[in-house]
Amino acid sequence: MTYCVGLFLDEGMVLLSDTRTNAGVDNISTFAKQHLFQREGDRAIVAMTAGNLAVSQAVINLIQEGVLHPDTGQVETIFSVHSMFAAAALTGAAVRQVYRTYGPTMQEQGVPFDVSILLGGQLAGRTMRLFQVYAAGNFINATPDTPFLQVGEHKYGKPILDRAVTPETPLSDGVKLALISMDSTLRSNLTVGLPLDLTVYRKDSLELATWRITEDDAYFRELRCGWSDALRAAYKAMPSPPYLPWRSTEGP
Amino acid sequence: MTYCVGLFLDEGMVLLSDTRTNAGVDNISTFAKQHLFQREGDRAIVAMTAGNLAVSQAVINLIQEGVLHPDTGQVETIFSVHSMFAAAALTGAAVRQVYRTYGPTMQEQGVPFDVSILLGGQLAGRTMRLFQVYAAGNFINATPDTPFLQVGEHKYGKPILDRAVTPETPLSDGVKLALISMDSTLRSNLTVGLPLDLTVYRKDSLELATWRITEDDAYFRELRCGWSDALRAAYKAMPSPPYLPWRSTEGP
Repeated sequence: MTYCVGLFLDEGMVLLSDTRTNAGVDNISTFAKQHLFQREGDRAIVAMTAGNLAVSQAVINLIQEGVLHPDTGQVETIFSVHSMFAAAALTGAAVRQVYRTYGPTMQEQGVPFDVSILLGGQLAGRTMRLFQVYAAGNFINATPDTPFLQVGEHKYGKPILDRAVTPETPLSDGVKLALISMDSTLRSNLTVGLPLDLTVYRKDSLELATWRITEDDAYFRELRCGWSDALRAAYKAMPSPPYLPWRSTEGP
Repeated sequence: MTYCVGLFLDEGMVLLSDTRTNAGVDNISTFAKQHLFQREGDRAIVAMTAGNLAVSQAVINLIQEGVLHPDTGQVETIFSVHSMFAAAALTGAAVRQVYRTYGPTMQEQGVPFDVSILLGGQLAGRTMRLFQVYAAGNFINATPDTPFLQVGEHKYGKPILDRAVTPETPLSDGVKLALISMDSTLRSNLTVGLPLDLTVYRKDSLELATWRITEDDAYFRELRCGWSDALRAAYKAMPSPPYLPWRSTEGP
């Protein structure tokens, strides 16, 4: 299992994924589930994948090696596209190509064709964007109304994001919230695991800042303990429910 | 969709369910997804159901009307069993009986045979227990290590329970935590909805205290707002992540 989350904030983006299923692919800055595509001063793109690993890897390879554009007849890659929208369309085309190749056989063998991709980034002079590409190759993008997207095991980590993430959330707070969201997932689903891959992108910088967060990461350990303590303190501080004491013999 | 949660605490039990799918059954103290079986001084039992409504209702009817015990040949009901273990076994037998009757046709029509039941309570002179009965009729019970059980849409509301619920949690705090867990679910899944049915059982009391919590419930409204505020304050108070500022041109 996997959990990937992307925050789409006014200041930039926070992209966080776990690594429990290790991908074996070894190409440009490839982390387990986070794949970085950078060219200095030109583009900074991150793809995070969830779902069937063979499908994910095939898609990530295809967008680097090239997919034939159905209209122009040109081969496009993640380094040749001229916008994030085109990057999302390219990724969707790669997903459909993989589906055409392997989908029928997988279906016959009862293996679901399951892949979801978060694709965030910016090209020089263009708008920063964050997309979610589905298994049909279609996609949506994050908006101010929905300033975060998640793929994989997303439910445990959603409540804190629902409550706290707005476009105005500073990047630093966004990192905290993404890590808290991940921590909730790690605690509740053992198939999501450390280390974590974190990429922070400051809008218009065209530079990806990445970290690998391991078990030994002092800040993440402090955050996990501190957050549990804070939650316990917070619920303790809530007023007592009026439904008790007993309406029966114990009466108020 | 449904969310039901049961807390199994030293002091007693908290049982909370939403009501968005309304059941039409009208028998002894039947709420939408919460069914109460009480006989003064003798037994206090609560069943909360999730899954296919026709299946759930058939099971709830059967445990009241009676299921033939395979060994004794006696008809047993939720009011005749002599322990909570026997009540769980009876419920499981009812599930299997419903499965034998409707399962094959449902399967042919592509409808999953989907039912989960939380069954908590106590009989005079016996131990308080909380069980989860599965669609195969088998069951597990809550223990000090797992002092809560959930059925239905359980993931959004699990992190707060994972972090805060212990057997020593007082009933009053248990009610708060169950409501916070429900609130996280309500916010993230629109198919789980108000009003809520809450039953609190104080150990050895043999009395069920029940409330229906509507949109107008002042305490629940206060709790929802207060909890969101507390979460935002809590994450703001966490130390800033050391992964920023930028290692790039912006340097520390």
